[in-house]
Amino acid sequence: MNYKKLGNILGKIMVIEGVLMMAPLAVSFIYNESLTHKLAFIIPILSLVIIGFLLQISKPKSNTLYQKEGFALTAMVWIIMTLFGALPFVINRDIPNYVDACFEIMSGFSTTGASVISDIAVISRSSLFWRSFSHWIGGMGILVFVLIFIPESNEGSSMHLLRAESPGPQVGKIVSKMKVTTRILYLIYLGLTVLEICILMLDTPIPGYENDQLFFSFLTAFGCAGTGGFGFLPGSMELFNPFSQYVMAIFLILFGCNFSLYYLLLIGKLKSFFKSRELKTYFLIVFLAVTVIFITLIGKFESFSQSYTTEEAFRHSLFQVSSVMTTTGFTTTDYNAWPTTAMMILFMLMFVGGMAGSTAGGIKVSRIIMSFKGVHTNIRKLINPRYVPKTKFEGKNLEEKTINDVFAFITLYLFILVAVIFLLSFDPINGSTMTVVSDAGTYTVKHGFFSNFSSALACISNVGPGFEAVGPYASYAGFGMFSKVVLIFTMMLGRLEILPVLILFSPKTWKKI
Amino acid sequence: MNYKKLGNILGKIMVIEGVLMMAPLAVSFIYNESLTHKLAFIIPILSLVIIGFLLQISKPKSNTLYQKEGFALTAMVWIIMTLFGALPFVINRDIPNYVDACFEIMSGFSTTGASVISDIAVISRSSLFWRSFSHWIGGMGILVFVLIFIPESNEGSSMHLLRAESPGPQVGKIVSKMKVTTRILYLIYLGLTVLEICILMLDTPIPGYENDQLFFSFLTAFGCAGTGGFGFLPGSMELFNPFSQYVMAIFLILFGCNFSLYYLLLIGKLKSFFKSRELKTYFLIVFLAVTVIFITLIGKFESFSQSYTTEEAFRHSLFQVSSVMTTTGFTTTDYNAWPTTAMMILFMLMFVGGMAGSTAGGIKVSRIIMSFKGVHTNIRKLINPRYVPKTKFEGKNLEEKTINDVFAFITLYLFILVAVIFLLSFDPINGSTMTVVSDAGTYTVKHGFFSNFSSALACISNVGPGFEAVGPYASYAGFGMFSKVVLIFTMMLGRLEILPVLILFSPKTWKKI
Repeated sequence: MNYKKLGNILGKIMVIEGVLMMAPLAVSFIYNESLTHKLAFIIPILSLVIIGFLLQISKPKSNTLYQKEGFALTAMVWIIMTLFGALPFVINRDIPNYVDACFEIMSGFSTTGASVISDIAVISRSSLFWRSFSHWIGGMGILVFVLIFIPESNEGSSMHLLRAESPGPQVGKIVSKMKVTTRILYLIYLGLTVLEICILMLDTPIPGYENDQLFFSFLTAFGCAGTGGFGFLPGSMELFNPFSQYVMAIFLILFGCNFSLYYLLLIGKLKSFFKSRELKTYFLIVFLAVTVIFITLIGKFESFSQSYTTEEAFRHSLFQVSSVMTTTGFTTTDYNAWPTTAMMILFMLMFVGGMAGSTAGGIKVSRIIMSFKGVHTNIRKLINPRYVPKTKFEGKNLEEKTINDVFAFITLYLFILVAVIFLLSFDPINGSTMTVVSDAGTYTVKHGFFSNFSSALACISNVGPGFEAVGPYASYAGFGMFSKVVLIFTMMLGRLEILPVLILFSPKTWKKI
Repeated sequence: MNYKKLGNILGKIMVIEGVLMMAPLAVSFIYNESLTHKLAFIIPILSLVIIGFLLQISKPKSNTLYQKEGFALTAMVWIIMTLFGALPFVINRDIPNYVDACFEIMSGFSTTGASVISDIAVISRSSLFWRSFSHWIGGMGILVFVLIFIPESNEGSSMHLLRAESPGPQVGKIVSKMKVTTRILYLIYLGLTVLEICILMLDTPIPGYENDQLFFSFLTAFGCAGTGGFGFLPGSMELFNPFSQYVMAIFLILFGCNFSLYYLLLIGKLKSFFKSRELKTYFLIVFLAVTVIFITLIGKFESFSQSYTTEEAFRHSLFQVSSVMTTTGFTTTDYNAWPTTAMMILFMLMFVGGMAGSTAGGIKVSRIIMSFKGVHTNIRKLINPRYVPKTKFEGKNLEEKTINDVFAFITLYLFILVAVIFLLSFDPINGSTMTVVSDAGTYTVKHGFFSNFSSALACISNVGPGFEAVGPYASYAGFGMFSKVVLIFTMMLGRLEILPVLILFSPKTWKKI
C-alpha cells in the first residue's frame, strides 16, 4: 500500500471539496442568510482545507498506484466526502441528525436523489443549493474531476481511478491522454449544463416564485446533469410549466447518453456516432417505454386515479420514462398510482438505467446488450459445440472475459439487492401505514415488502424515489437509523458499481502481497 | 436432426405416460366413480399408447443423439406430456377449460403446485390422484425414468437427456453406467416415498376424513417426494395433525437433498457424505431461516394477525421453511400475513431452492455457493492481478467455465423473471381486489405488481403459492388465458432450467449444421 500517495490524493480531494463548498456559501451570502447558515459552510470548508493540506505535507516516494489501491481509494474518497459534506446540514439544523445528513449528501453525491426531508419548504437556500450541487459534482465523479488537476499522476494510476469511478463495464479513452479525455468530458458536461440553464430561463416563472427562476434553473440543471433528482419544491417538478418539463425530459435523455459520443459529434465523426449500438438500443428503449406507458394512460385498460388530457399523458410518460431510465427520479405526477403495466415498465427501467459513461446509474444499457449477446453465444454453443463466437460490440471484438464480468456483475447486483431488502425488513416501520397526498388524491399505503424492495432498488440504481411507501410523494424519513446506514452504503455500491466498495472492505486489500 | 430417433423416444414416453395413467384409472375404479370419470383416463391412455406405438414403427438408422437434440427432445417431451396429461381434467369436467387443465398438469409435472382450482372439495378422487401423482413423475424426471427402460440407448445420448432434465449445474454419474445410476436414484426415490406413506399412516386420521387416510398419505407423499405441493384439502396441510406436519417437514428437507448423497450413505461412504459443502450449506440455511422466522413469530416485533403458541410458532416456521426452500408450497398457516422479515426470508428461499440433483426447484444451493466463490475469485483477482484461483467444490476443481455458466444462468433467470412480471402486468385482473379468508382472519388484497412478481417467482422456482393475491389461501384461477399460457411456460422454464426450452424454440436448432 502506497499510503503516502493515498493520503496525498485524499488531501487534494478534501481541499477541492472545500473549494466546491464555497458555492453554497456564496448562495448563503447572496440570500443574506443568518450567521449560522454561513458558518455551516465556513467551518467544514476550513476543516477540509486544513486537513487536506496537512495530508499533502509528506510527499510520496512513488507516484504509482496499483489497481487495488485505486479501487480502495475511490471508495474511501466517497466516504470522506460524505462525512464532511453532511456537516453543513447538521450545523444549520436543516437536517439535525448526522446519519440523516450523511444519507442526504450521499444521496446527492451518488446522484440518487432519495431524501429524508419531509418538508422541503423549510430548508434554507444554501442547503438546497449544496444538495443539488452535490449531484453535479458526483455525476461525473469527483476523482475524475481531480484527475484534471493532478499534474504528476502517471497514466496507469489515473486509469485505475477512472475505472473505479466511471459507470459502465469498460472505460475507453477517447484521446490518448487520460487527462485530456477527462477534461474534454467535463467541458461537455459543463456546456450542456449551462445550455440547460439558459433554456430554462426562457420559460415564464412559476407563479408565486417569480424571483427564484435563476436559482431554480441552477438547481434543476444540476439535478438533470448529474441525473440526481433532488426536488426543491413540494411535488418535485409538478409545479413547473409544461415547457420546462419538456426541456428537462430532453436534457435528461441527453445526460443519460455516453459522453464520449458527444465528443464524436464534436469532432464530426457522425458515422461512428450513429453506429453506436448502445445509443440505438437506449433510444429504442426510451421510445418503446414512452409509447406503451402513453397507451396505458390513454387507453385506461386498468382504472387509475388521475385523469390526463392527451398532452398531459404524453408529457408525463415522456418525463417519467426519461427521469426513471436515467435514474434521476424527478417527477411531474404520482406514478405510484398508475396502472400496473406502466409501473412495471418504470420498474424495469430502474434496473436498466442509462448508458455506460453517462451520469446515470443502474445496470447500464451496454451491460444488458452484452448479457443478451452472451446468452445468445451460450445457446449457440450448446446447439453446435464447434461454434466459435465472433461477437462484436461498438465495433470492437467482445471478449468472453468481458461478458463473464457482466454476468458476474448482474449476479452480484441481484445478491446485494436481495440482501438489502432483507436488512430493511427488520426496520420497525414495517407493517405501519402512511397517508399519501398527491395529484392522484389521498390514499393509504402499507410499508412492507414492496416498499423495502423499491427502496433497495431505487438506492442501488441511484433513482431515488421508488414505489408505495417510498413513492414520489413520500420520503425516506420514516426509516430507522440502521436502515438508513444500510441505504447509504447501497447508494455508494450502486454509484461505484459495487467492486471498489467491496475491495475497500476486503481484509486482503490491506495485506502485503 | 435424427428425427426418427426423436420420434422413437417420444413414442416410448407416450406409451409410458399411458401406462402411468392407469394408476388414477385404478383409483377411479376403487372409488367407483362414474363412467365419465373412467373414460376421462381410458381415452387419453388409448390415444397415448396408439400414437406412441405408431411413432416407434420406423426404426432409426443411428442411435446417436447430439446435445442439441437431447435438449430439444426433453423440452418437447414435457410439452407433449402436458398436452395429453391435461385431457382427463377436461373430459371429466373437473377443469373444463383446456388451458386451465394444461396449467394444472404442467404445474403438476414441473412440481410447482400452483393451482387454478378454486374449490378443491368438488374435485374427483381420480383427478386428485393424477394431479399429485404427476408431481411424483415430474420430480425425478420422466426422461430419467425412461432411460431405465431404453436398452439400446448409448451412453452419450443418455447423458445429454439427463443433463437437460436434471436440476443443477453439473450432472455426475454415481456409478460408471448411466442406466445403473438412474435406476439407483429411482429406487432411493421410491424407497423414501414408501417410507413416508408408512409413517404418515401411524398418525390418527383427520376428523371427518377417517376413511381417507391411506389415500391422503399417498397424495401427501407424492407431493413431498416431488416437492410439488398440490393441496387436496381446504387450507393445504392446515387440517393435518402436528405429527403429520412434522413428518412432512422432515421428509421435505430430505427430498430437497441431492439424491447422490443417499447413495453415498447406502454404500457406507459416510465421510464423503458429511464432507459435502452443498449439504452443509443447505442445512445451515434451513437452520438459520427456521431460527429467525421462529424468533420473529415469537418476539412479535411487528404485529401480525395470528397468535401462535411456542410449539405452533416453531412448527409453522419449520414447515414453511422446508416447504418453501424445497419449492414445494404446502402450507400449514397463512404466511402471507406474517411479519415482513419472515416473509422476506421465505421470498429469499424461493430464489435459492433446494440442492442440485434433488427434486426441488429454484436456483439451487450449489449455484449460490459457486457464484459466491466466483465473486470472491473476481475480487481477489482485482486486488492481486497475479492471483491464480484454485477453487474447489465438492472435492473437485471448480473450473472457471462452470462459474461463468452459473453467472449466466442467474442472469438469465432474472431476465425471464422480469419479462414474465411484465407480461403479467397486462392481465385485466390487475387493480382488482380480492378477499382472503385464512387462519389470519379475513383481509383484502389488491392484485398488482407484488402479486405478479410473486406469481412469476413462484412459477419459475416451481414453488406454487406466492404472496398477496396468489398467496397460500388464494389460487391462480383469476388470471386470464394469456397469463396462464405465460405461466405454463414459466413453470417449464423453471423445471428444465431454461436452456432446453430456449433450444427447442431456437430456429438454429432445426437447421443443418
